[in-house]
Amino acid sequence: MPVHTAHKVKLSDLGEFGLIDLLKKQAGSSFSGIRGIGDDTAVVPLSSKKHMLLTTDMLLEGVHFTLKMPARAIGHKAIASSISDIAAMGGIPKHALVSLGAPPSCPWTVISQIYQGMQRTAKKFRIGIVGGDTVKSKKIIVNVGLVGEARKEDVIYRSGARIGDQVFVTGPLGRSLSSGWHLRFAPRVNEAQYLVRKHKPTAMIDISDGLAADLGHVLSESRVGAVIEERSIPRRQKAHLKEVLYDGEDFELLFTLPSSAAQKLEKQNKSKYRFYRIGEIVPKNKGLRLKTSDGRLKKLTIKGYTHF
Amino acid sequence: MPVHTAHKVKLSDLGEFGLIDLLKKQAGSSFSGIRGIGDDTAVVPLSSKKHMLLTTDMLLEGVHFTLKMPARAIGHKAIASSISDIAAMGGIPKHALVSLGAPPSCPWTVISQIYQGMQRTAKKFRIGIVGGDTVKSKKIIVNVGLVGEARKEDVIYRSGARIGDQVFVTGPLGRSLSSGWHLRFAPRVNEAQYLVRKHKPTAMIDISDGLAADLGHVLSESRVGAVIEERSIPRRQKAHLKEVLYDGEDFELLFTLPSSAAQKLEKQNKSKYRFYRIGEIVPKNKGLRLKTSDGRLKKLTIKGYTHF
Repeated sequence: MPVHTAHKVKLSDLGEFGLIDLLKKQAGSSFSGIRGIGDDTAVVPLSSKKHMLLTTDMLLEGVHFTLKMPARAIGHKAIASSISDIAAMGGIPKHALVSLGAPPSCPWTVISQIYQGMQRTAKKFRIGIVGGDTVKSKKIIVNVGLVGEARKEDVIYRSGARIGDQVFVTGPLGRSLSSGWHLRFAPRVNEAQYLVRKHKPTAMIDISDGLAADLGHVLSESRVGAVIEERSIPRRQKAHLKEVLYDGEDFELLFTLPSSAAQKLEKQNKSKYRFYRIGEIVPKNKGLRLKTSDGRLKKLTIKGYTHF
Repeated sequence: MPVHTAHKVKLSDLGEFGLIDLLKKQAGSSFSGIRGIGDDTAVVPLSSKKHMLLTTDMLLEGVHFTLKMPARAIGHKAIASSISDIAAMGGIPKHALVSLGAPPSCPWTVISQIYQGMQRTAKKFRIGIVGGDTVKSKKIIVNVGLVGEARKEDVIYRSGARIGDQVFVTGPLGRSLSSGWHLRFAPRVNEAQYLVRKHKPTAMIDISDGLAADLGHVLSESRVGAVIEERSIPRRQKAHLKEVLYDGEDFELLFTLPSSAAQKLEKQNKSKYRFYRIGEIVPKNKGLRLKTSDGRLKKLTIKGYTHF
């Protein structure tokens, strides 16, 4: 944007991704680590063999949840969305920090149940909730910071997809909000570890902003295009195509494999995890296209859930 | 509290420390790490020689700051209060995660300046802001998660104060809010490192809830009492005794040293750091007492800034 009008710019003019881009530019060299702000997860060296992975997610009452939802489910979602970020990088979640804002009039049972939901999920993944902060606020705020680790060779970025790679997802997409899936989804830590150790994905991401937007992140970071097949994309509850492409909060993994590895995976696909081949990586100038059920190729716009 | 009335209990009935106590009890064994929620900083093993330190702080518009304050100072405070927590444990801050909530109508310049303030302070302490989250909210929210590290032998807990130890602080107390100190304070990382390496404090904490409350934390964790001397406590801007004891947000270190180490420190006290001896650790049954300027001993109530 022109510098002389910058002071008039509001966040709603920028959108979430615009804001993140500007923050990245402003940050410049003061950001350490291998990956910076705006990525799902930051990666910093931990030892000669391991990387540390760091991510944070903030959920707000009235924006991401309401108190009509079960409080335990809110707690689950708050930590599970961060677990999903760590999983998508090939990492194992380890330690969580929880900041909690709540009004003085808030019943203790609500807070207690939010924590119970968080603890149950933390326990399932052997995560320690090691610290936190509590503050007074008008609405409930839950912020989870999550620290994980990964063997250096296991870390997978968004930028590794290559022309000819096959595109997969780990489960059905669309209607996450209306079906309540966004409150009870299981972060794909085990699936990601299986993939990382047995099949070496070239790129991986979790679908939080919607298939089109998150595949879009992979394409732009990898400087490639893709064709996805309408018929091949698994759908939740007969979701419409638009819901499948743009709804968001599916928290399934999207990953790419070279075609030989893809064949091997599909042969082993009667094991305990399910993987769905939905398309192929193509040259960048082809952009992102959908092969419709009647065989036409349709250009897709890369948009998704945005927060501003 | 009796179980049958628990569902009627509001956070305002519990107070901040009551809430933290209940969360700790509920958490039970699901908390990993050496220290748990409610402490300034969590400590988890990192390698055979090092511990990882983790802390998080949430600042809210209308509670901890207003937009009448300089936006850069808000950013400084958001990260500096976490840096202070890590410093007080004997650690070096390394990586920060920043979650930001803001209304769509918020000018970009406000967010930009909050980040600039944060980055300047991060840079000064060689901290990388490695990741973050941005969400839509009614008021501005800044959450900083901070990861640090320390040599195992350098980590200092609140629980190590012993009878006969001398109590010190690193600077003047009181009137932090009215003087604006809370927006520009320098976290005592260097002072803490000097102390840890040269003088081995037995206990250390940063004063955020007020001298009486934070010394109170040390006394209860160490199972001891203390006498502090009205005349010896350094004051900011001729603060009244009540302000010195209860104001909070001083962000100075409070630490204890065995008397031989205290003598050594006072001899070296013409070096680049200033330390003020303010009292002595006594048996637990004596509680916390103040020796007034006219020589009387007065029992102090351990209260401080609470958030609910």
